Amino acid sequence: MPGRVLHPGRPRRRAASLADNRAAITEAAELGADTLILVCGGLVPGSRDLGLARRMIADAIGELVPLAQQLGVRMGIEALHPMFCADRCVISRLGEAVDLALQFPANAVGVVVDTYHVWWDAQLVSDIARAGLRIVSYQVCDWVLPLPRDTLLGRGHVGDGVIDFGQISASVLAAGYAGYVEVEIFNAGIWAAPAEQTAKTVVERFPAVLG
Amino acid sequence: MPGRVLHPGRPRRRAASLADNRAAITEAAELGADTLILVCGGLVPGSRDLGLARRMIADAIGELVPLAQQLGVRMGIEALHPMFCADRCVISRLGEAVDLALQFPANAVGVVVDTYHVWWDAQLVSDIARAGLRIVSYQVCDWVLPLPRDTLLGRGHVGDGVIDFGQISASVLAAGYAGYVEVEIFNAGIWAAPAEQTAKTVVERFPAVLG
Repeated sequence: MPGRVLHPGRPRRRAASLADNRAAITEAAELGADTLILVCGGLVPGSRDLGLARRMIADAIGELVPLAQQLGVRMGIEALHPMFCADRCVISRLGEAVDLALQFPANAVGVVVDTYHVWWDAQLVSDIARAGLRIVSYQVCDWVLPLPRDTLLGRGHVGDGVIDFGQISASVLAAGYAGYVEVEIFNAGIWAAPAEQTAKTVVERFPAVLG
Repeated sequence: MPGRVLHPGRPRRRAASLADNRAAITEAAELGADTLILVCGGLVPGSRDLGLARRMIADAIGELVPLAQQLGVRMGIEALHPMFCADRCVISRLGEAVDLALQFPANAVGVVVDTYHVWWDAQLVSDIARAGLRIVSYQVCDWVLPLPRDTLLGRGHVGDGVIDFGQISASVLAAGYAGYVEVEIFNAGIWAAPAEQTAKTVVERFPAVLG
């Protein structure tokens, strides 16, 4: 089950955030989903302290681990592109997500590999290998040029941009990942297109993803 | 002397790029500038191979080193924010710039620390320490929220955004840097403002930069 946000945010909202995430883990279990993806939140409002924000995330995950283990739901830490560091997620590289995940039991915490966010990273391949079976989700979409003015909704169909999916996919498979390849394209134009057209494009482009 | 672009780019443009950069080094020497800043270029047009682009940059710098040493001009490798990786600079983190610079003599190749590009990096402080006396330029401006639609010209005055300048500046000074702090704000509104107003704001904000 992807998409619920972990945002430890402002200290006085901390208890509410934890309660919200416990509810999300419970909901995932009720739905039979084995994974809950965490977009961990940006800087604490009013603060410039990246270290504080990162420690709060680690602490929050630690508090959620027992419930996740009890209900059999793994949390997947997703690194977001550094352009979202300030306001959406201070975990900016896959390597940071791996370092964080490795502090917790493997059955409770994993990582997400989303090509859009991590494709540029010179250490990506080694961090994927290091992630190994901690990878709980592999998401693909393309980085298109020129950089769209709306960076949140500016993703492209696989093959429309610059990402070398073959190498990344081979690394994810070599790490032992055997789950779905999720095509996740935040793009208002694609959302507005007929679903069958989008599905057709995805099917056509899939060989490129698999290298 | 900041601002000349190193772009090894397309193979058939390689000789022209090298000639252009030799001319820039010569020009810097004629002006009495001791530094030439390199914005190293994005992916090779038509290619998705980040490794190729990075190797071409390393090779190009190696070819330029003898002239730089002969004329007493140091080249400064500038890491650009990962959102510019595809089209402007495949050197996306200070650590990559340091790794690259350390392959060459210290009197020929250094690195630039530009807060706008590197503030988000969890390894920034350790990479600044590792850079040490290789730091040839320290540039400041702020990362403002929300992310401007024009990411190239969306920088803010120091203090208007989220960057923790105190910690970064302390690290740069501790590394032994004794040069200028360059205020470099790519922002059409600020460019259009009266120069004395911009200078006044910069002077007022400077204590925040120095922590």
